[in-house]
Amino acid sequence: MESSELHEEMSNKQVILRNFVVSGSPKESDMFLRTGTAKLKVPEGSENAVLLKNLYLSCDPTMGIRMRNMKVPGSALLFESGSPIRGYGVARVLDSGNPNFKKGDLVWGLTTWEEYSLITAPQILFRIEHADVPLSYYTGLLGMPGLTAYIGFFEICTPKKGETVFISAASGAVGQLVGQFAKLLGCYVVGTAGSKEKVNLLKSKFGFDEAFNYKDEPDLVAAIKGCFPEGIDIYFDNVGGKMLDAVLLNMKIRGRIAACGMISQYNHDQPDGVHNLMNIVLKSLRMEGFLTSDLFHLYPKFLELLLPQIREGKVNYVEDISYGLESGPRALVGLFSGQNVGKKVVAVAHE
Amino acid sequence: MESSELHEEMSNKQVILRNFVVSGSPKESDMFLRTGTAKLKVPEGSENAVLLKNLYLSCDPTMGIRMRNMKVPGSALLFESGSPIRGYGVARVLDSGNPNFKKGDLVWGLTTWEEYSLITAPQILFRIEHADVPLSYYTGLLGMPGLTAYIGFFEICTPKKGETVFISAASGAVGQLVGQFAKLLGCYVVGTAGSKEKVNLLKSKFGFDEAFNYKDEPDLVAAIKGCFPEGIDIYFDNVGGKMLDAVLLNMKIRGRIAACGMISQYNHDQPDGVHNLMNIVLKSLRMEGFLTSDLFHLYPKFLELLLPQIREGKVNYVEDISYGLESGPRALVGLFSGQNVGKKVVAVAHE
Repeated sequence: MESSELHEEMSNKQVILRNFVVSGSPKESDMFLRTGTAKLKVPEGSENAVLLKNLYLSCDPTMGIRMRNMKVPGSALLFESGSPIRGYGVARVLDSGNPNFKKGDLVWGLTTWEEYSLITAPQILFRIEHADVPLSYYTGLLGMPGLTAYIGFFEICTPKKGETVFISAASGAVGQLVGQFAKLLGCYVVGTAGSKEKVNLLKSKFGFDEAFNYKDEPDLVAAIKGCFPEGIDIYFDNVGGKMLDAVLLNMKIRGRIAACGMISQYNHDQPDGVHNLMNIVLKSLRMEGFLTSDLFHLYPKFLELLLPQIREGKVNYVEDISYGLESGPRALVGLFSGQNVGKKVVAVAHE
Repeated sequence: MESSELHEEMSNKQVILRNFVVSGSPKESDMFLRTGTAKLKVPEGSENAVLLKNLYLSCDPTMGIRMRNMKVPGSALLFESGSPIRGYGVARVLDSGNPNFKKGDLVWGLTTWEEYSLITAPQILFRIEHADVPLSYYTGLLGMPGLTAYIGFFEICTPKKGETVFISAASGAVGQLVGQFAKLLGCYVVGTAGSKEKVNLLKSKFGFDEAFNYKDEPDLVAAIKGCFPEGIDIYFDNVGGKMLDAVLLNMKIRGRIAACGMISQYNHDQPDGVHNLMNIVLKSLRMEGFLTSDLFHLYPKFLELLLPQIREGKVNYVEDISYGLESGPRALVGLFSGQNVGKKVVAVAHE
């Protein structure tokens, strides 16, 4: 970047939400691309603001919830129609009025889907201290999905060596890491995913003990039972719905369910009914949701654990990268039909 | 009792399970009365056995599950067709081969529905040390329902002063006590029950802040919202099903649900679908089942808390007592249509 950029108006491509989704899954046409302009400088008087050049944008399932304008308590991420959609990303700081960031810093955190973002209240923005790993990892493995996997598995599931662990959407941004954490701890790990390619990844790349394609199984209860004749201690749930219902029948007494996501349900106008909740009573199960953002203070501990594992090749991570902001709407909506293989990222610019 | 009883065969009325329930609610005709005989002495060589004269038998909702022969892990309480049904009760020890019990002791714990029970493995049988309160209380307030209320509320719900608490089946054996615990702690407490009489009890006798009859409410979501405009911190669930579904929409972020029972579902051949579980993810809820029998070690602490409160009249308890073993089947099946007002007990014999 040349220094003259800072004082000029630059062209600024943006992904704009056309209207909130009223029914069904988000479609590409619910968004459109607009080319506006951006001054690459924090405006006078904007203390705390930072001006970002976005490098990678993260496609996350919860963005489907926000496209429906659901009233979610505690969310800092609500969308506005006619404005760029928002999400996590990796960026370089071009200008800063904020004492915590300086020009040239690499950061990850909440940003907007455009080439240049002016973030006026960067509460959820973190400086990247370790750039010897792929920067895109800070949208996944080393970002929110990674921290979500860590907190969900270690804090919510209270796992013990030798326990049996089942993971849905197991090749996704969170699932692939949960499975590897569980293997590192010495658990028996089974995952399910929606294609042969993904199922192969689970076993060949992530070291799962077993994996199956749920789309090939007419009887989910039996398919799960086949993998867990003695039952499941821990279910890491990314999908909800019918899979959750089938798992409940296969849980062991005192089992734990991390309610991480319910992607199968986000775009249903009327969510599926789950019939087997009585198992929570009968088997003393605990089912628990969690906000990763409540536990950001665990991020340094998480990095300390994970960075050496990545550098030593003990933890793998599969990303599915689309190039160019123009590819963003398609990349995002593809999540809801399982088009992505691994963590879905949009690469916006070179570092 | 005369000492000659010990050596004679006595007539022994029993409530026998005719067949397991296959469909629908248990009916009186699923049981029958039989008059057998009992020797009132522990047989030679039966170390550990005790011979009980039953005084009070407890009608508990989970007996409906066992009448359906559901495979419940960890249950010491399975029924056998052609044998007396089993449950909790209060009894006097007539004879004992067990060093922990002696003739004349009053006990509470697992027994069988007959006049005299030979308990060969009395793992779940406790000596009653405090008989200055009504003995029937050891089927309720001072027995399993009481300990369940204590553990479910204090251990599972992790309540704090000033939080909002909602209780279903609130006038029942467990609910009435949860409400009083919550009031003693300084919570805002609302209960729901299925008749005007029960609702009146909640407010007049147990000190609930609000109460409503769910049968009068065409819109449960709105009825609950009317009582909790800011939402619910703690839901103590005794019923499951549609009420749980309506509550999920009204929970606050980081709310807790004690999954104590799901009486609305025990007799459904296909349980209701619960559609709003996504709230567990979106609001970081915790929903947890528990086995009271896992936490029997808390019983002394529980007694220490509760006995003074009972003696000082700070905790009330309503019982609904039927007299005579013959009344047992009707008393038990009445639970599933809410016929009982308060804790349902069958008084079998005088002390």
